[in-house]
Amino acid sequence: MNKSYTFNDYISMINSQLDSFIPECTYGEPVVCDAMKYSLGIGGKRIRPVLLLEFCRVCGGDVKKAIPFAVALEMIHTYSLIHDDLPCMDDDDMRRGKPSCHIKYGEEYALLAGDGLLTRAFGVIAQSDAAKENPLCGIKAIAVLSDLAGVEGMIGGQTVDLKNEGRKASLETLEIMDSLKTGALIVCAAELGCIVAGADDEKATAAVTFCKKIGHAFQIVDDILDVIGDETELGKPIGSDGESSKSTYVSILGLEKSREYADRLTREAVEALEIFGDEANLLKEIAGMLINRRN
Amino acid sequence: MNKSYTFNDYISMINSQLDSFIPECTYGEPVVCDAMKYSLGIGGKRIRPVLLLEFCRVCGGDVKKAIPFAVALEMIHTYSLIHDDLPCMDDDDMRRGKPSCHIKYGEEYALLAGDGLLTRAFGVIAQSDAAKENPLCGIKAIAVLSDLAGVEGMIGGQTVDLKNEGRKASLETLEIMDSLKTGALIVCAAELGCIVAGADDEKATAAVTFCKKIGHAFQIVDDILDVIGDETELGKPIGSDGESSKSTYVSILGLEKSREYADRLTREAVEALEIFGDEANLLKEIAGMLINRRN
Repeated sequence: MNKSYTFNDYISMINSQLDSFIPECTYGEPVVCDAMKYSLGIGGKRIRPVLLLEFCRVCGGDVKKAIPFAVALEMIHTYSLIHDDLPCMDDDDMRRGKPSCHIKYGEEYALLAGDGLLTRAFGVIAQSDAAKENPLCGIKAIAVLSDLAGVEGMIGGQTVDLKNEGRKASLETLEIMDSLKTGALIVCAAELGCIVAGADDEKATAAVTFCKKIGHAFQIVDDILDVIGDETELGKPIGSDGESSKSTYVSILGLEKSREYADRLTREAVEALEIFGDEANLLKEIAGMLINRRN
Repeated sequence: MNKSYTFNDYISMINSQLDSFIPECTYGEPVVCDAMKYSLGIGGKRIRPVLLLEFCRVCGGDVKKAIPFAVALEMIHTYSLIHDDLPCMDDDDMRRGKPSCHIKYGEEYALLAGDGLLTRAFGVIAQSDAAKENPLCGIKAIAVLSDLAGVEGMIGGQTVDLKNEGRKASLETLEIMDSLKTGALIVCAAELGCIVAGADDEKATAAVTFCKKIGHAFQIVDDILDVIGDETELGKPIGSDGESSKSTYVSILGLEKSREYADRLTREAVEALEIFGDEANLLKEIAGMLINRRN
């Protein structure tokens, strides 16, 4: 089996290379490239790229070759946050304790920085060594990424979210919304990691199940933290979901049942990893980290 | 040589298939898919997809296989218009004589419709028959599209444009801006058509030269029409560029020299077609049509 890495190994690997995938500004107007680097660099948990790299590894793939795919996925996640924060969407001035992209660079450049990251993500995969050596792997990855980030995936989830603003959504609607808005890109991490590694269907299915379950638990924990979390650690105002009279897992199920639900999903996620044997230790650690996180 | 088509044949081919490349709405919130179809359907000249299909044909490729690539390119062009029309950008209420996407659907859904078209474009190529049969062709096309639509191409041009708003830009700046903002996607039509056809370097270079020149002439004619055109035919208020004290070819060179410049570029474009012999008739017709257009 491949050399193993820690969570922090992966974070360093990703953070040290992110900027190198943003083109240099050719015509003396660097503001959009700067805005792209700023938002990519703000950080966050890097859950998606870490999962992608680790699934590639446990499926026997070359982690180094998977890095462009991990960066592309983080670019898509970052663009979605930039556009989500815009005044016409959530109108959030802060992101991870720092000024949002449009506060720092202006709305028009934030719009273009989001467009630039989304556009670049597909190029990063198409221009990767893995895609050059095995073009079918590149084509498959781009097809999956386009579906899961698009109107059948993440953008679809944002639409459901917007349509239910100010309404009390049902648990069913909330679960559909989350499975698309947040879940789709976490599942994408599993899919892309498996594609780069050339994993068989059984392993790919296990990886996707794990990511679906922890993605779901992740969102429930988000809602719990929004009620009980610490504002400084969270990097956004507490209770912001409650104020806008949005349905959350906590408002529908209550705090205790939400916690139980997240725990059950995490247990089921870990069970899906059985096929990977001892190689799944880091993935189990990540599942535990997400359920016990405080921000 | 391949069966030939007229300009209108290509338009029908494209228009009849555009909608089929937009996914059906899965979760009962069709607004973003509707907005995507609306803006794609509004029409316009379809110059980019027609050029792509015709370059594929004159280079000996299968036009039917190139259709998804042509649709993808038109999706990218359409997303850029949706985002350009948003209040934080040009704040245009009308597009081609009809309400802009954000006027019809609201700003938040227009933003997502643009994101959805951009995301989908890459998936359309990755899921095409041509890419399945020849994955390297798909990978090459996606790499080129990402570069030419991104911060080194179209988005870079929009940045230069924004940075020079309200200033009198030099001719050099204007030419850089146009070559990126408008030119990049027209050149992309040549590149993608040649990639699908597997054209040799000599033909690909000729195709790119033709598209660079007519793309440039196109922009000059745009500026001329903005001064002398007919508002109804143009579908946007005349003199809108002048009012905002933007530099244009006409404001820098005057009307007569601008016309001469556009004529010269068109002649040079047609000269570049020599390598295609008699097969280049439709391309010559398109060059003439663009220079003599009234809207």
